[in-house]
Amino acid sequence: MRQTTFTIQTDGPGLYEFTSQVRDWVSDNGLLTLFIRHTSASLLIQENADPEVQTDLRAFFDRLVPPTSDPAMSYLTHTYEGPDDMPAHIKAAMMPVSLSIPVTSGRLGLGTWQGIYVFEHRTRPHRREVLAHLGT
Amino acid sequence: MRQTTFTIQTDGPGLYEFTSQVRDWVSDNGLLTLFIRHTSASLLIQENADPEVQTDLRAFFDRLVPPTSDPAMSYLTHTYEGPDDMPAHIKAAMMPVSLSIPVTSGRLGLGTWQGIYVFEHRTRPHRREVLAHLGT
Amino acid sequence: MRQTTFTIQTDGPGLYEFTSQVRDWVSDNGLLTLFIRHTSASLLIQENADPEVQTDLRAFFDRLVPPTSDPAMSYLTHTYEGPDDMPAHIKAAMMPVSLSIPVTSGRLGLGTWQGIYVFEHRTRPHRREVLAHLGT
Repeated sequence: MRQTTFTIQTDGPGLYEFTSQVRDWVSDNGLLTLFIRHTSASLLIQENADPEVQTDLRAFFDRLVPPTSDPAMSYLTHTYEGPDDMPAHIKAAMMPVSLSIPVTSGRLGLGTWQGIYVFEHRTRPHRREVLAHLGT
Repeated sequence: MRQTTFTIQTDGPGLYEFTSQVRDWVSDNGLLTLFIRHTSASLLIQENADPEVQTDLRAFFDRLVPPTSDPAMSYLTHTYEGPDDMPAHIKAAMMPVSLSIPVTSGRLGLGTWQGIYVFEHRTRPHRREVLAHLGT
Repeated sequence: MRQTTFTIQTDGPGLYEFTSQVRDWVSDNGLLTLFIRHTSASLLIQENADPEVQTDLRAFFDRLVPPTSDPAMSYLTHTYEGPDDMPAHIKAAMMPVSLSIPVTSGRLGLGTWQGIYVFEHRTRPHRREVLAHLGT
């Protein structure tokens, strides 16, 4: 059993890949679990081939959960940290806070096109902590 | 390896925190996994500071997935258990059924503002079972 | 610790149950983790009693994330694999890529009405790979 913390610096909403950091850390056979210690950013496994997928993901969720400055969202009450605050919590409820990936002979079981991302939902820069656990 | 079952009594839609029960049960180093044995309630890790976040989360998902008594949802067919039945299944598909959190020296790796909740989607009171597994 | 791969052949959008394959494979006490190696299909635990639940789940997500041939989705740019391509990635972001279920005395901790499914989001037939890890 091993544990570590990955730190991902974000600079506005969008996907930040850290697959290679994870790949370099795992070894042997086991199960890798990632856990993000925040309620306004998510973990996501998504296609890492065409960057348009990442842009489109962000565009979809921004339309599904607009900022509270949008009249359609006027029913929301938790707004004092800015118009991106409560929508970030909602997006964080809809996407993973933890992920588990089998590891075989030191290799992550990711599919060919799968990358591991932090999906930042807040506008201001943040330092995001992701706990990693490699177990049996 | 240890296992137990947490029972959370709910009384209508909303978030029910049980972080302290989990905190008291974990020990040593390892990985805590929670699994909810239902398809009409979810597990959720969310902000435990401002209760408005919990009210707003419920308000958002109630608008995204209205009861089947709403004309906009008339295309849904699984309605015999009441207007909150199928929307509960849909919400349960969008939010976690299982969660994993690293444990270090007997402490859960939760961030400062993170609490662990059952998100009840049904109107009537329910007794919800959450399996817990502490592994290595 | 044991690992295997389940292969699920899909033939268009919808839910494909493979609970019995998983049930037959698990043993002893431990934690089962499933991981799907794709970004356009999901894992899902849902009600296995009334097939209308599965039809309704698909109907809801098809309305929430229509094909890119729908004018409402004209803002999406990743369209060259067809109108079901980007919507499949979005659905895959909203539903689980990994699931963990405690196992006790060789029995999965599923609730009475819970089944394990691949939720296929693409139109064409696909051969989906799900990694399974049984750990302690």
